This record gives sequence, C-alpha cells and structure tokens, in this order.
Amino acid sequence: MIVSLKSGADAANVLRELTGRGLWVSRVERSTSGNAVHYVIAPHSQPADPEELARIDGVAEVTTPKPAHPLVSAQGPVVDVGGLPVGTDKPVFMCGPCSLESEAQVHETASVLSSLGVSFIRGGAFKPRTSPYAFQGHGDVALEWVRRAADAAGMRVVTEALGEGHVSAVAAYADLVQVGSRNMQNFSLLKAIGKTEKPVLLKRGMSATIEEWLLAGEYLLSHGSKGVIFCERGIRGFDDSTRNLLDIGAVALLRYVHRLPVVVDPSHGLGRRDLVAPLGRAALSAGAAGLMIETHPDPSTALSDGPQAVPLGELGALLGRLVSAEGAR
Amino acid sequence: MIVSLKSGADAANVLRELTGRGLWVSRVERSTSGNAVHYVIAPHSQPADPEELARIDGVAEVTTPKPAHPLVSAQGPVVDVGGLPVGTDKPVFMCGPCSLESEAQVHETASVLSSLGVSFIRGGAFKPRTSPYAFQGHGDVALEWVRRAADAAGMRVVTEALGEGHVSAVAAYADLVQVGSRNMQNFSLLKAIGKTEKPVLLKRGMSATIEEWLLAGEYLLSHGSKGVIFCERGIRGFDDSTRNLLDIGAVALLRYVHRLPVVVDPSHGLGRRDLVAPLGRAALSAGAAGLMIETHPDPSTALSDGPQAVPLGELGALLGRLVSAEGAR
Amino acid sequence: MIVSLKSGADAANVLRELTGRGLWVSRVERSTSGNAVHYVIAPHSQPADPEELARIDGVAEVTTPKPAHPLVSAQGPVVDVGGLPVGTDKPVFMCGPCSLESEAQVHETASVLSSLGVSFIRGGAFKPRTSPYAFQGHGDVALEWVRRAADAAGMRVVTEALGEGHVSAVAAYADLVQVGSRNMQNFSLLKAIGKTEKPVLLKRGMSATIEEWLLAGEYLLSHGSKGVIFCERGIRGFDDSTRNLLDIGAVALLRYVHRLPVVVDPSHGLGRRDLVAPLGRAALSAGAAGLMIETHPDPSTALSDGPQAVPLGELGALLGRLVSAEGAR
Amino acid sequence: MIVSLKSGADAANVLRELTGRGLWVSRVERSTSGNAVHYVIAPHSQPADPEELARIDGVAEVTTPKPAHPLVSAQGPVVDVGGLPVGTDKPVFMCGPCSLESEAQVHETASVLSSLGVSFIRGGAFKPRTSPYAFQGHGDVALEWVRRAADAAGMRVVTEALGEGHVSAVAAYADLVQVGSRNMQNFSLLKAIGKTEKPVLLKRGMSATIEEWLLAGEYLLSHGSKGVIFCERGIRGFDDSTRNLLDIGAVALLRYVHRLPVVVDPSHGLGRRDLVAPLGRAALSAGAAGLMIETHPDPSTALSDGPQAVPLGELGALLGRLVSAEGAR
Repeated sequence: MIVSLKSGADAANVLRELTGRGLWVSRVERSTSGNAVHYVIAPHSQPADPEELARIDGVAEVTTPKPAHPLVSAQGPVVDVGGLPVGTDKPVFMCGPCSLESEAQVHETASVLSSLGVSFIRGGAFKPRTSPYAFQGHGDVALEWVRRAADAAGMRVVTEALGEGHVSAVAAYADLVQVGSRNMQNFSLLKAIGKTEKPVLLKRGMSATIEEWLLAGEYLLSHGSKGVIFCERGIRGFDDSTRNLLDIGAVALLRYVHRLPVVVDPSHGLGRRDLVAPLGRAALSAGAAGLMIETHPDPSTALSDGPQAVPLGELGALLGRLVSAEGAR
Repeated sequence: MIVSLKSGADAANVLRELTGRGLWVSRVERSTSGNAVHYVIAPHSQPADPEELARIDGVAEVTTPKPAHPLVSAQGPVVDVGGLPVGTDKPVFMCGPCSLESEAQVHETASVLSSLGVSFIRGGAFKPRTSPYAFQGHGDVALEWVRRAADAAGMRVVTEALGEGHVSAVAAYADLVQVGSRNMQNFSLLKAIGKTEKPVLLKRGMSATIEEWLLAGEYLLSHGSKGVIFCERGIRGFDDSTRNLLDIGAVALLRYVHRLPVVVDPSHGLGRRDLVAPLGRAALSAGAAGLMIETHPDPSTALSDGPQAVPLGELGALLGRLVSAEGAR
Repeated sequence: MIVSLKSGADAANVLRELTGRGLWVSRVERSTSGNAVHYVIAPHSQPADPEELARIDGVAEVTTPKPAHPLVSAQGPVVDVGGLPVGTDKPVFMCGPCSLESEAQVHETASVLSSLGVSFIRGGAFKPRTSPYAFQGHGDVALEWVRRAADAAGMRVVTEALGEGHVSAVAAYADLVQVGSRNMQNFSLLKAIGKTEKPVLLKRGMSATIEEWLLAGEYLLSHGSKGVIFCERGIRGFDDSTRNLLDIGAVALLRYVHRLPVVVDPSHGLGRRDLVAPLGRAALSAGAAGLMIETHPDPSTALSDGPQAVPLGELGALLGRLVSAEGAR
Repeated sequence: MIVSLKSGADAANVLRELTGRGLWVSRVERSTSGNAVHYVIAPHSQPADPEELARIDGVAEVTTPKPAHPLVSAQGPVVDVGGLPVGTDKPVFMCGPCSLESEAQVHETASVLSSLGVSFIRGGAFKPRTSPYAFQGHGDVALEWVRRAADAAGMRVVTEALGEGHVSAVAAYADLVQVGSRNMQNFSLLKAIGKTEKPVLLKRGMSATIEEWLLAGEYLLSHGSKGVIFCERGIRGFDDSTRNLLDIGAVALLRYVHRLPVVVDPSHGLGRRDLVAPLGRAALSAGAAGLMIETHPDPSTALSDGPQAVPLGELGALLGRLVSAEGAR
C-alpha cells in the first residue's frame, strides 16, 4: 500500500494518522521535483481501507496492489470435507501414524481414534523420505487399508499424494488430499491434484513465504480444487534444539487476517512428543482450525518418525487437555 | 547424548527401545574395527535418564555432555522481582510504551496499568535504534519519571540498560533490568549488569540459538545477578508479512524442558497490534510466565514503534481476553 | 565422527592433537561411570583418517557414520554430457534465456552463444512460476526449437523437466536434464528422471542442507542417472538487497571436500545483472565447474526474469572477463 | 524507488523500459479511482537515475527514499589506516591468531607476517566467548605485546574493543579498531569508538541486513570515526556443514554498488582451514579489499579457534596462491 501526499500537505499529521491506525511507514519517497511524496506502508501493518485513508487531510491518493490470489482470498475460513466443516470454532483433529504400516495397525488406530471423537485418520501410503534407502511407504494397498478402516470407524481419511502418478488413486480413497511440505511448489502436482476437485490439505514449504504458500493454494483452486486447508508444520530454523521452527505468527495471520482455515502439525513442528500438548494448545489459541498429531500403537516399532509419535494409549489424555484448553478460545 | 552398544548387541532392539522412548538416533557411528557402535541422539529428543538407558539390554555405556550452563540449569522456573514471583502459574504482565516520552505520559500509563492489575510498567529511557538519526530516548530523567510513576501506582519497573554507562542508573531505578535483543551477546554489558545483583529480563538475540541464549544467562548469574527471566520477542525471519518470527517452540522448550521462566513479547514478535491477543493467548498456552505488551495513550504520537502499540484505552479488554484464556492452562 | 578415549588417557593432549589437525571438538561426553569419554567432532572440521586418529596416544576408538550417499560419494568430480566433460579445470558455460520464447529468439541466441564458445544453451520450455497466472512456458514445441537451434550451432541443451509428465519429452530433447530448485525433493520426479539414465543438473532447494542436496542426487543415481552435476543458485536469505543468498562456501565444499562437479547460477543468485561478473569470477575461484548465466536478445521483452538477464550483445565481454579471471585458478 | 505512470500511459511499454534497464517491478499498485498507478521497484534491481527514468514516455514521477546513511554513502571505497590505503586494487591482508596468547607468540607471528608482506597483524586481547567459562583474553597487557611486535615488524594492528571500558586502551594501541560481529548493534559501544576518531573494522552481525550494517557504520562516522571498513565473516546459516554462511553477494554489493571497502574473513566464514584458499580467492574475485585470515604458530595449542587457524608455516604458500589469483581481478 502507498499513501501519496498532496502538495503542501502536513506530512507530520499524515504520519500521525497512519501510525495511529497501526500502519508502519517503512520508507518515505520523494521525487526530485518535490511534487510527489509517497509513504510506503510495510506489509506487517494493520488492515486498512484505502478509501478511508484517502479521506485523511493531506492525502492525495492511496494505492494497493491487485490481489495476487483472488480465489484463495475469496475462499473463506471454512472448507467442507465430506460433510465436515473444517475452520469453524470447533477444532478438528487429524491423528494417525506417520506411515500406514499394516492393515492391523491402521484398524487398531482408527478404532481408538473414533472412540476419542477424532474426525480424520492421517497416515502416509507414499512417503517423502530424504534418503532413497529409507522406507518409501506401502503404496496403493495402504490406501485400501486406511479407507476400509476409516469407513468401519466412521472417519475421514487425509493422506499424501507424493507424485503425479499417485493422484488419482489418492483422490479415490482420501476425503482430503495432502500436499507435502517438500511438494508445496511442485506446480505440476498442484495442477493434477486441483483437477481431482477434491479438498486439499496444503502443507507449508520449509522456507515458503506466506505469499508463496497462498499462491500454491491459488494453483489448486484455479485448477478445480473444492477448497484448501493450510497446514503449518514448522519451517527451517537455525537451531537443532527443535526439529523445525513452528511459525505461530503465520497461524494467527492466516486465521485472522487472511480469514483462511489453518491446521497445525505440532508433531513435525518440534519433533518432540512431550511438547505436542503445549504447542497444540498454543496453536488452537492462535486460531488454528485443528491439529494434525502423529500417534502410533507402538512408536518403538514405527517405520518412520517413531520418536515424535504420541503412543496411541496416551492420545486420549492429550486430546482431553487440548479440548479443555480450547473451551476458553 | 551417545548410546554405545555392547559387542554382539541386538542393534535393532536397542533402536526400538530408544525410539519408543522418543529418542531420535540422528546417526549411527561404527569403528573400522567394528568394536565400537554408537547411536548419537539428536538434541530434539525426549529427556532421558542415562542410567535407565544404560540398563537396556545390549547397551554398554551412555554418555552425556557436562552441563554448559550449570547456574542457569539450577535456577528453576521462578524468579523473585522485588517480592513478586515471576514464573508461577499466575501470568505476569509487563506493559507500557516503547519509549518513556514524558512524565505525563508515564504517569497516565502507570495509573491505568495498575487499575488493570498489571504488575510491571515497561518503557525505554535509552533506546536501541537502528539509525543514529532516530530518537535515542530521554535518558536518565526518564528513569526518574518511571520510578516515581511506578511507586505512585504500586508497580514495578522493567527498563533497558543499553550501554555499560547506563547500568548503575538503571539498576538504581529498575526492579528488573532489561538486556535488549541486540545486546544479548554484549558480554561486557552482561558482566556489568550481573554485578548489580539485580534480576534481569534477557531478550533473545535475533539469531541466537537456545544454547547461546542460556549461556548469556550464565554470564549474568556467574557475575552476580539474582535471577534471569528469559524473553522471546521474535527472531529474524525471511518473510516481511510479520516484523519478526515468534518462536513458540522455544517458549515451550524453556518452560517445560529447561524449567526456566520465559516471558513473551508479542508486540515485537509480529509488529501487529491486531494479533497481540491471539499470540498472547498462544504464548500463555505454550507455558509463558507472562507477556510484555506495548501500549501508549495515543500511539499516533509515539516517538517509536507507534504502529504496534495497543491504545491504552483498549488494553483492559485485551488483558481480559488473555486472562480468561489463561484460566484453561 | 567420535573419538573415544582410553581410560586414564591424557585428555588435554588428545584435544591438542585433534585441534592441530583442524578438528573441532563440538562437545565432550562422559558416562556417569567415567569409563567412557567421547570427543564429538563437528561437521565443519577438516577431513581426517579415522585409522590415523586411532593411533594417537590415548585414543581407544574412532567411529564414523556409514556413508549416506555412496553413489554420489563415489561419482567423482567429472560428469560426461554428450561427450563433454563437466568438472574439469576448464569451466563450462550454460547460457540462454529464462524462457524459450520463440524459435527466432532461440536460434538468435544459440548462434551468438556458439560464436562465443559457450557449450550449453539453457532455457525453460516448462516454467516453475510462483503464481498460476504467470507465463507457464511454451511446452513441448519449445523443446523442438531449442534442439534444432543447438544442433545447428553445435551446442548441447540443458532444460528443466518440471513435472513427471514432461520427463520423457525433456529427456528426448535435452543433453542435460535440469531439476529445478523447487523440485529438489520432488522424489517421484527424481525417480522418473533417474530412469531416463540421462545426466542431470540438480539445482539446490531454497533451504536445502548440503546433505539433503547430496541425497537428492543419490535418488537420481540410484534410479539410473548417468551423472549428477550440482547447481548452487542461491538459497533463501533474510535480506531483500539480493534476490537470493549465494552460498559460496557450499561451492568450495562440494568441489574440494565432496569432490563433485558444481555449477553456479549467479543470475538467480542475486537477481542483478551488474553483479554477474564479480559473482561469476568468485564462483570459478571457489571451484565451480562452470556458470549458468541468463541472457536474452532483448531483456525488456523477456516473458520471465528479464531484469536479471544479461543482454545477449554484452555477453561476450562478460565471458571474456570471466575466462581471463579463470586463468589464475 | 517508485515509478508513477501518467494517466493513459502505455503501461506495458513502461514495464518493458524498466525491465530492459534491469529494474524488477516487485508490484503494481493502483488507486481505486484509477488515477494513480505505481510500479514499485524491488531493492535487488540495477542502479538507475530517477531523472532519466522520469523521461520515459508515460512516466509521471519517479520517487526515491532519502539516503538513510549519508555519511557512509559518501565515504568512498578507500579508508586510510595509518598511512595505508585499504580499498584500492591492491588487496590488504590482516593475519594473526584468534587470541593474543603470549608476547613470544605475538612476536613470532609478527616477524613471519611482515616477511610475507602482510600489512596488519590481527589478534584479540579481549575475547567475545559464548560461554563465561571460556578463555576471555589476556586484556590490556596483550595490547602492549601486539603494539611492540607490530612496531618491531613495521606492521599495523587491528584488534577488538569488546566493551566500552576497553575503547580508550584499544584506540591507543590499535591502528584499526575492530567491532566484533556480536557488537555490531551495540550502539553505546559504536558511539564510544566513534569518538576515538580512529578508523574501524566493522564486522557484520550474524543476522544483520546490509542496511543495518551500513547504519551501524553511520553510527561510527556520525560520532567521529575517520573511516569504516566493513568485514563479511559469515552470517548464521541452517546447515552445520560450515561454521557460518559466507555471503559473497554482500561483498560484491558493498564493493560495486555501495562503493565501500569490504574485507572478508574466510576463517570464521566456514571454520575450515582447508577452504580458506578457495574462499579467499573467491572473496578477492568478488571485490574484497582484503582478507582477514587466522594463523597460529601451533594451532594445536591455540587458546581459541585453533581448528580454523592456518599453521603459520603454511601461510606463505597460501598467500602466494591468493595473490597470484588476485592478479587476474
């Protein structure tokens, strides 16, 4: 946003008016002729109505950029996933193992989750692993396991389409198609998933700006997706005390400024099961529409990310503390 | 932490035991002779008792590093500031203007704050400004203003000692001496402040690791300070959508793992007054001992950081929402 | 690497021996029994032979991790691309427009490039654009343009396979298949490209560690690729003075420590055509195997990234300064 | 910079004109009335003359911000240090140990350095150590050692003033006063050092933007310093493969855009003595005015940073390779 002054305007007064409204003037620009004086407003300012600002004494014009992501901007805070609204004041929980490891594991998990009122079972059939020698996921058969288990437990499925070749299968079995953090700007994949017209859970890239994240959502909507739920899972930090760096400011920004549904994954956020509860509470307090929490019947045998998984037997107590904290939002 | 295996140990079993306990094996190291096999445990693992791990079948030895900051590690979660314990379950609020601008402004602020039950008035007499041409603060006289106003309102004072030359004056007038973010590794200043034996609010450096932050606290305690309260105010991010990047994971880590008092400054965290409430709630939910919030009778006239200041008249409503959210912690 | 001490060893002497060899002891770990003492060596240490270290007086064992990327580690510094060795002391230049915009543009560019002794023509048929509304590339027809132009000018083609659906076409027309920065951990794409058995130019992800970058290369080699040339193009920084942050340390690390061919893209590195020359010189001095430089017959009409393109007419002078600087490597 | 269009201007043509000049239009802003259209130019654009741009057909006005650091902007590329110009085409070398450890060590080092034509001996009397328990430096007596040794060898001294209490002593003994990376925004220290009217070597903060770095220089000049030489020593990265992240783009930016002298410290940049040569070459090729290299008669006995120190006996060969590479700049 740029606020341009009239010739001879009381610049100090205009500055006060802008500052009072919570607008940061990041810099003042002048033409050599002196005719033009612009106050450039920093992005981390309060929302402001250009027309209201234009009525401030001494202001000539107020300009704003054309919305870069009109579809995302118009989407609104609630996305329907198979009849379940995500983004209302009632938080949604998406729990399950990092990898779908066996039909037994998936069924055991689904039955406990549904008894706890969890709406979504999460779990990867196709796994994005940093090393080619690590477990890559059981593939299509695991999609069948999770669909059967979810149907039996009256739950919905969220699972990742890792490559373009997986899209149709995942779209067929999942209620909510997940785009992984490493694929946030895999534009071919976004186009393919958009065409399935399914709602999508879009995880933030490890060094993605908010604008890049929203534009990735625009790819999905502009190619047909029925709704995008954003997921903050931690960005790259410089300190290995935590696995990633959970950007709680982005959660509040998406919820209260961009009015979009944002789910938080505290499991990947810090990589520490002992901090899932305080981080989960914090995320809900900051406006998260829900939480994605990794849990496993026996984390010691997990084929991936076992150390951050909450033992399935302890999940109930954890969710209890989260929901009670939530009541005060 | 390093877990070394016995010769012939069932390595897979040891791995399961460690994974089950939430310990990430970041790498496995072997000697060329094959005699030595070490599992190196990643820092973002669960706390674990080396002696308990040493009893796992197949484990030969478990080693840990010597505590680098023994005084900070032994300090505990509560620091007494002029009779007020900071770090209990009752959150502490530190509010006030960015700069102490006039005796009138300080008195007006203090009286409103104390009516709202705020314990500390904050405000800078000496201001760390990026540019030498920006307002540098009113200096010593402002210390007198804030002391008088606090005493009249039964409040405590937290204010920054910007340079070694300010230490004795600030220590004389403040209940809690603040070390600013840009001075977190100003070791000469830390030594000088430590010697005043006052409790200190230590703001995190913009790219400081948790370990560097704790070691800066160790400088203060090892030179005499009576207690260190850590303050997360946002680190440097790569996205100008927010002024800084509030590291909520660090808050939970300090509170629940290092068992230290950590206050959060959501004003500097995002630079957005409209997000102070959700971020404040999130910080308290994550374990913050209190919040430092910038407020000003008339932000439009503020001499520094006006856009992020909550108008004094709106602070009461804001604190109300924070305290009610707090009840559920 | 971990250096374990014998019981009763002269620890200070071992520390001196390690320090003298340029090894950083990042921490010392002890078992509660005192039997085990480990010196953990930091990654940014000098290369060292574990067996030689094991012969230091007082050292019991030296362990190292199993190589995580054996194929990449064994590849060596030179990759053959259609008969042209990349990675020798003779720097290779890959120049051309950001987007392949028309047959005329491609032919004009190729003829000038070949007259300047440039080996590769670069240019995108499929463009990774942050916004879905930006120019996405002319697609398959552009592959034909660039192949014809390269053949006519005796050059080789390097162009990006943006999605799995483009792989076979790109592999058919390109001598060197490019994986873009945003696709570095698009594992499905890496597998598909590996299977074409073509040599690959692997651009570094915007927040990829060196290890993640090498493991992405391992995906390519382990699925059949004939060779991986790494490309440093700048990572995400926190300062918008430059478009990205060119990590020159990574260039020297890949060349001299990992003994791998690394090309540098100074165009994307800073986004400034006026700094392509000094950055290009610096990259070659740091050990780069070549440079990828964007150039365009008329940057003002470029469909993407025009501002950073060196006008085709000025490329000759630029390359002249680079090659002369190169003579002193 | 903002380029404002005339009503009815051919916006596409203006965009071409700007793009052709290497200017990135980061966003287009319009007023709701449509009267005002601004092209906001990104910071990583080419330098441009506002008056020349204002003559482009369709351009109404071109505005620029007032220079934030007029003194630094006017300083120029060469700073005289005790009669030695730093910033000419002849690179300057500043070598020596991390810590000044004994009179013997300092004398031995100085005599070798001067025989190699090195102009400055570097070394810390007061050491900024992350932990309060680490070696803090020998203090004032070490200043005497280094002065005597330098005078005997006809060299100049560069050493750090760590706290305000050291400023007068360091200013008395040093030819060039160093501000350490952790003190770049220690504004009280900058003011005190400025008043000594000595030339200063200003190391960049670990997460300092270029603008913050230049403004720290403005503090020094505006308080009396006779000249500021900037020193890039590596910023905080996210990958522990190197100790820090050497920002070579910043070196070229300071040299060729801001026309300021910038020295590079490859020792701290990566923490690897084996990469000091390629990084040093790269720095000189990118426009560095000189190099600061840590060396020690016997690194194994160094009291700080031994692993990155080049053994004094190997420095000659290293400098030889650097100076020959330099000839081609």
